[in-house]
Amino acid sequence: MFYGAEVTFIPWPVPEPLLPASVSPALADAAHAAVTAYRTARRLHTRPQLAEEVAMGADGTPTMFVDSLVEDAIAESAQSNRVNLLSEEAGFIDNGSSTTLVVDPLDGSSNAASGVPLSCFSGVLARDSIAVEAMTVWLDTGRVWWARVGQSTSYRTSGRTTLDGAAVSLLRPKRNNGDSWQRVASRAGRLRILGTTCLETALVAEGSVDAFADPGSDTLRIVDLAAALVLVPAAGGAVIDANGRPLDFDPDLTRRWSGIAAATSALADQVAEAILG
Amino acid sequence: MFYGAEVTFIPWPVPEPLLPASVSPALADAAHAAVTAYRTARRLHTRPQLAEEVAMGADGTPTMFVDSLVEDAIAESAQSNRVNLLSEEAGFIDNGSSTTLVVDPLDGSSNAASGVPLSCFSGVLARDSIAVEAMTVWLDTGRVWWARVGQSTSYRTSGRTTLDGAAVSLLRPKRNNGDSWQRVASRAGRLRILGTTCLETALVAEGSVDAFADPGSDTLRIVDLAAALVLVPAAGGAVIDANGRPLDFDPDLTRRWSGIAAATSALADQVAEAILG
Repeated sequence: MFYGAEVTFIPWPVPEPLLPASVSPALADAAHAAVTAYRTARRLHTRPQLAEEVAMGADGTPTMFVDSLVEDAIAESAQSNRVNLLSEEAGFIDNGSSTTLVVDPLDGSSNAASGVPLSCFSGVLARDSIAVEAMTVWLDTGRVWWARVGQSTSYRTSGRTTLDGAAVSLLRPKRNNGDSWQRVASRAGRLRILGTTCLETALVAEGSVDAFADPGSDTLRIVDLAAALVLVPAAGGAVIDANGRPLDFDPDLTRRWSGIAAATSALADQVAEAILG
Repeated sequence: MFYGAEVTFIPWPVPEPLLPASVSPALADAAHAAVTAYRTARRLHTRPQLAEEVAMGADGTPTMFVDSLVEDAIAESAQSNRVNLLSEEAGFIDNGSSTTLVVDPLDGSSNAASGVPLSCFSGVLARDSIAVEAMTVWLDTGRVWWARVGQSTSYRTSGRTTLDGAAVSLLRPKRNNGDSWQRVASRAGRLRILGTTCLETALVAEGSVDAFADPGSDTLRIVDLAAALVLVPAAGGAVIDANGRPLDFDPDLTRRWSGIAAATSALADQVAEAILG
């Protein structure tokens, strides 16, 4: 029984996020642009249409139609706010500013296109390549995590220091990391795969999950980890690469990391050790 | 750095669900009781308090404090609505009726206690052991899936018939099913572990995910699958056990199944074959 395209719209609303008053205008405007574009995309296009691959992104992975709709809206917002943009599909767009917006327009694209209610807008404001502010918006609920570098946040990580029995979110196992994945998974007390790094690292920041990791598949790009690099340390946690490589705001989006976000540095190190075996 | 118990409350609201007008009063009342109890529990108790094991449930697994708070509220609701109750922790409570409410008071208990925003109330109304109506409420958003047996629903499964490349949700791998888990996971195009069977099967019903399965670990109880047994077929899909055992509304909650919910019977059978190997 196949019911056809007329029933494949995602029916749920995309709520307006309640942004803190202190969010920088360029970041707030980009978030609102993303929310509005995603809401419109779901209203006008079916799931198969949203998921259609329309181009190859600057990160070397295919761009879905829904990605391009949301990123176009953000690019317009960045231009009118006169900030540069570093984004998954478009790469680096120079608008002649010392400020750059580093964004994942639609983190969890597959979820966003299929209706799995786990996708985010995530952005960092960087001045002269130094992050100053970050925000992740869970598009399906309007929940917002925001932090400015050097200021404390209202949320805190769980404070956990040990992997055995921890609540861990992972990327799915891939061909190149089955053993590493299994080593981390078998020691975790709880295990989740949500398919949205930005939400999973926000859950680490707020203390709902102890750690998130790409267990050695080298899948993550800087746009996936940018917000976590601000949000998680601001809440008492740590973000590292399993292989100890520095996490740079590099315009070359083909660079990849096995990122780990954890409640504490001690836990991040234990996850890295488990990945390396 | 450990910040202590004062910061471990779950800060997000628990919204009021918008129930369809045609929901039976006993089921609607139980849902509202669950929502109110869970909301109060999050306001009054920290994450570690919610997760504390306070008893052994009728299903043979430990009962968390948050489970008991929500189930107590539902039991009170069932009594005042003069229906029997079959529930995870309490087992069967005979209130002298031909109608029984079969509920999972708090599906995704670990998520619910830790703040991972993926937990549900899920209930089925059965008359003389025949299901007549089912509803799942996603507690963190108020989203509701409801169906009455013999009536069509507004949502439809994806209609997918093949496992290779499908979007699949799984229980996490356990000691007794590593190979089966790997066989299903390696054929899936997308893979999720959300830790809430009721939400994952609702996502199958609405066409956001193609299939959900316990890949052979025999973990699922009838209360985990009860709502799916109504919601998924009403939307064009199928719910089976991997080993072909009948899924009965049996008051013996120690019985377990490797349940599969899929967009079509053909896909459910393919998932079962992959599990059995």
